[in-house]
Amino acid sequence: MRVSQLGEFGLIERLKEILQSGLIGDDTAPVQVGGQTLLLTCDVLVQDRHFKLAYPPSAIGWKAISVNVSDIVANGGEPLYALVSLVLPDMEVSYLEELYHGIKRACDFYRCEVVGGNISRGDELCIDVFMLGKTERFVGRRGAREGEGLFVSGTLGDSKAGLELLLMERKSYEPFELTLIERHLRPTARIDLCKHVSRYASASMDLSDGLSSDAYKLAQASGVRLNLFPDRIPLSQELLAFCKKHRKEPLQYALSGGEDYQLLFTQPVERLNPFLSMVQIGVVEKGQGVYLAGVPIEPEGFDHFRVV
Amino acid sequence: MRVSQLGEFGLIERLKEILQSGLIGDDTAPVQVGGQTLLLTCDVLVQDRHFKLAYPPSAIGWKAISVNVSDIVANGGEPLYALVSLVLPDMEVSYLEELYHGIKRACDFYRCEVVGGNISRGDELCIDVFMLGKTERFVGRRGAREGEGLFVSGTLGDSKAGLELLLMERKSYEPFELTLIERHLRPTARIDLCKHVSRYASASMDLSDGLSSDAYKLAQASGVRLNLFPDRIPLSQELLAFCKKHRKEPLQYALSGGEDYQLLFTQPVERLNPFLSMVQIGVVEKGQGVYLAGVPIEPEGFDHFRVV
Repeated sequence: MRVSQLGEFGLIERLKEILQSGLIGDDTAPVQVGGQTLLLTCDVLVQDRHFKLAYPPSAIGWKAISVNVSDIVANGGEPLYALVSLVLPDMEVSYLEELYHGIKRACDFYRCEVVGGNISRGDELCIDVFMLGKTERFVGRRGAREGEGLFVSGTLGDSKAGLELLLMERKSYEPFELTLIERHLRPTARIDLCKHVSRYASASMDLSDGLSSDAYKLAQASGVRLNLFPDRIPLSQELLAFCKKHRKEPLQYALSGGEDYQLLFTQPVERLNPFLSMVQIGVVEKGQGVYLAGVPIEPEGFDHFRVV
Repeated sequence: MRVSQLGEFGLIERLKEILQSGLIGDDTAPVQVGGQTLLLTCDVLVQDRHFKLAYPPSAIGWKAISVNVSDIVANGGEPLYALVSLVLPDMEVSYLEELYHGIKRACDFYRCEVVGGNISRGDELCIDVFMLGKTERFVGRRGAREGEGLFVSGTLGDSKAGLELLLMERKSYEPFELTLIERHLRPTARIDLCKHVSRYASASMDLSDGLSSDAYKLAQASGVRLNLFPDRIPLSQELLAFCKKHRKEPLQYALSGGEDYQLLFTQPVERLNPFLSMVQIGVVEKGQGVYLAGVPIEPEGFDHFRVV
């Protein structure tokens, strides 16, 4: 059987079975070392899969760090140290320097440090980042409880719209379009929420594959049903303008668009903190799967491999 | 300027300058978390650069873990946890399962655990491993002192001979040739020496690029001269048989052959422990560079990039 027949998630299940670790299945792996809970995660950006070489290299570097910080924050942690493993073809040194300036800028912003890495030759550029974080309390996908609220940390669907605009390769863009493109190119991990998640969330993950697909994973891991309120899902003015212009359905972008890197978490509804960025978009119910205003919806995820 | 003009090590210097971390420059990065010294490292195996797809996949998995454990052990640490980041084209699932069986077998041998990872699509297979270890005392490349002995943990040059045999793609091999091939395909990290290195070594690294090149790095980092005794460098019976058959110079293989994954370390000569695998191959002197029986030698390293 080929990977394209099995799909990304089927392959992960097979390989997990071989490794036999109980720690696989969340955005980060929580391990205990000397009485401290450490979080380990890694995420790679591959040329022509996650970015194009024509993108600003500093944005690619920023994003490579941000997507890893997002995983750490999603589990209630703060980022500490990173390693950058680079596989690269022969290319301009100045391109790589700009990439690393983006990496450095992101690390300064999130207050973490790249302490090492590796450089190896290959046919395509891959930026693989490994990150170590720590937490007072690990919060994974398994703890959602019936009666709690489902929260999201910001607007959804912007990144997908930004990507579509980028792929149009137009000569000029309107200001609201540039904002959407920026959200795709330079997402910001919700570092502002890490303490809140660690203290109050019962289950948490980051939105990298899209709300319908990620909510489905959280529901499955927690053994609950998530019922979403469609009119409460936050949509940006820029996404609304984009959808009006291109005759698209904004809710569809919010549900299926990936790479927003907002947090999706559950907590008692009274834990809503008006001083932090969070909106209740649903409730945790008894049952399974994801519902939109009481109607079951299917996960619309992106599978890098599946073709059949 | 292109990477091929600057070379691998020139590129690393440029990127280090951007990152401005004082922790880059050893086999692992030592970081302090909650009073514990943790070691972070990563190393990647890229298809057609570090291995061929025709190699047994379980050996590739074994090696991907071993080269990372080797870095941790070189700095006096023990491996704890690993992440495996896989970039892969569409391929047979059974191949990947065999690869992961090799990874699992290596982790069981070294007593560490893969706790997560990532899978992404790409044009060529890359196995990128990130490893976390811990140590009582970090030993890097900087501590060699005049008057100490230079030690190596085992025979050198076997891996290079094994690689050359593999590349001959012969239909059959003699038993001693199969041993050399095995040393290239399935190197064993010197986990048996991690406590000794942590307790007694003043400087340490693993031999991945070749003795002359790696000794040069250690000498430079410590600000000393290393004087090697050519007749004390341990050579295996298999390497001697190989060199006799192919009219090669065994010492040349020991000096320039990479990927032996033996440890190179300095310590007071009286710290030689006859119950552990170590041989004194030289002395630490005042000065700089690497000498062979008093004659300066140039580092013969392998640069993945440099072509001019």
